[in-house]
Amino acid sequence: MEYKTFRIPVELRFRDLDAYGHVNHAEFFTFIETARVKLMEQELEQRMGAGAPLFVVVEASCRYKEFITLRPEVLIVIQVERIKRASFDLLYTITDGAERVFAVARTTMVCLDAATQRPTPIPERFIELLSEKGA
Amino acid sequence: MEYKTFRIPVELRFRDLDAYGHVNHAEFFTFIETARVKLMEQELEQRMGAGAPLFVVVEASCRYKEFITLRPEVLIVIQVERIKRASFDLLYTITDGAERVFAVARTTMVCLDAATQRPTPIPERFIELLSEKGA
Amino acid sequence: MEYKTFRIPVELRFRDLDAYGHVNHAEFFTFIETARVKLMEQELEQRMGAGAPLFVVVEASCRYKEFITLRPEVLIVIQVERIKRASFDLLYTITDGAERVFAVARTTMVCLDAATQRPTPIPERFIELLSEKGA
Amino acid sequence: MEYKTFRIPVELRFRDLDAYGHVNHAEFFTFIETARVKLMEQELEQRMGAGAPLFVVVEASCRYKEFITLRPEVLIVIQVERIKRASFDLLYTITDGAERVFAVARTTMVCLDAATQRPTPIPERFIELLSEKGA
Repeated sequence: MEYKTFRIPVELRFRDLDAYGHVNHAEFFTFIETARVKLMEQELEQRMGAGAPLFVVVEASCRYKEFITLRPEVLIVIQVERIKRASFDLLYTITDGAERVFAVARTTMVCLDAATQRPTPIPERFIELLSEKGA
Repeated sequence: MEYKTFRIPVELRFRDLDAYGHVNHAEFFTFIETARVKLMEQELEQRMGAGAPLFVVVEASCRYKEFITLRPEVLIVIQVERIKRASFDLLYTITDGAERVFAVARTTMVCLDAATQRPTPIPERFIELLSEKGA
Repeated sequence: MEYKTFRIPVELRFRDLDAYGHVNHAEFFTFIETARVKLMEQELEQRMGAGAPLFVVVEASCRYKEFITLRPEVLIVIQVERIKRASFDLLYTITDGAERVFAVARTTMVCLDAATQRPTPIPERFIELLSEKGA
Repeated sequence: MEYKTFRIPVELRFRDLDAYGHVNHAEFFTFIETARVKLMEQELEQRMGAGAPLFVVVEASCRYKEFITLRPEVLIVIQVERIKRASFDLLYTITDGAERVFAVARTTMVCLDAATQRPTPIPERFIELLSEKGA
């Protein structure tokens, strides 16, 4: 199955810089969270309503390519890499909207049952929305 | 009535610095929140149990005296300035633990009823704990 | 003299929320900093070039009117309230872009000489840019 | 060669929690940065003086085991995993100071020449300080 690619801009803040004058490396994980939540809110939750699943990050990584200094925004390209029964992997390419790649990150998310807080299968409807033929 | 003074250390982080190499001015409000929550948790809530009230900040201000650069911690002196029926004011002096004063801040907190989210009188027991004769 | 009013949108992040599910009160100061830096960068610095002054916050306050929950952005209306020889006051109204006002904040900024780090008069060109007849 | 293990406590803040009431997953990277900077400042830089190298994070990852809710502090165990010519890997185990492991993280750091911002060999003295026979 082919999965979709999403392109989400994230606005930067002066506060994202640290004492070196670059965006702090931990902040990249907030950028990808911001992009992911925007994706979920704007594209997925409104189509799923109350059935929107609860996801938690169980693994996250980032490979830094280039420093980011103060700029209006970054464009984050989110690709669904893999979907398993109760988890899925997202790949994030943090770019300037053109050729420059600042970093490449990845998260593994697990779908939790809101009541039991235990892993639960990803809803079919959610998988469809992430897939090329979805929506 | 005389109110107590509390002295709460707060550990600093490299991430508290901004691109100027000083602690970012917004971070001072996180420092005083950290100190206030430590105070509530360590000194007040354990003596009040389930009756611990819910407080929200309705006004906050800070006058900055001196830049803070990276250092292990600051010592925050919290003084109860005024207690009214449903609100109270705290004064925070952010110091190096000795003579230097980095900033002076103030918050007005309102006591909310957890169920209705409306202002509610501050519990007597809480006022006693903030008062010199308390505890 | 009449001063200008600026309207600056600031994108929100899931991370701006705290454990109460509302935007954390310290984060409002980061919002107004973000808006102020956008204003400086986009509207003022490019017209002043190397002559752009260095400003530091010496006082900041915020009166909270309404909780902010997760939403795409806020619109911050920045009004120049007062300009003195080496300092000026900005008033920020944090809104939903329409009728709702979440908070009203104020900062006093002092103009510093980059070399000596001592207060220095605000450049005339900067005052013009903040004034109705400016630019 | 055997490398040292360092045990660094990091104080938590209410602000580290997100809207789920758990420490936000990006904050773990700030915790390990805080621990690493404390280690550098307290144990290494004072012994190296002006020769302290400049390190940047080129890769970071974290595997989350257990949610962290509000607590006074975590204890971070830092192990030097590998030292190469211009880079080294640190492994961080984020614990409650006893048996519980909240997360395991890893960073790859590259040593930069402060003037050229290009990779440069790690100073011998720094490697000694990280090694069992060091100090």
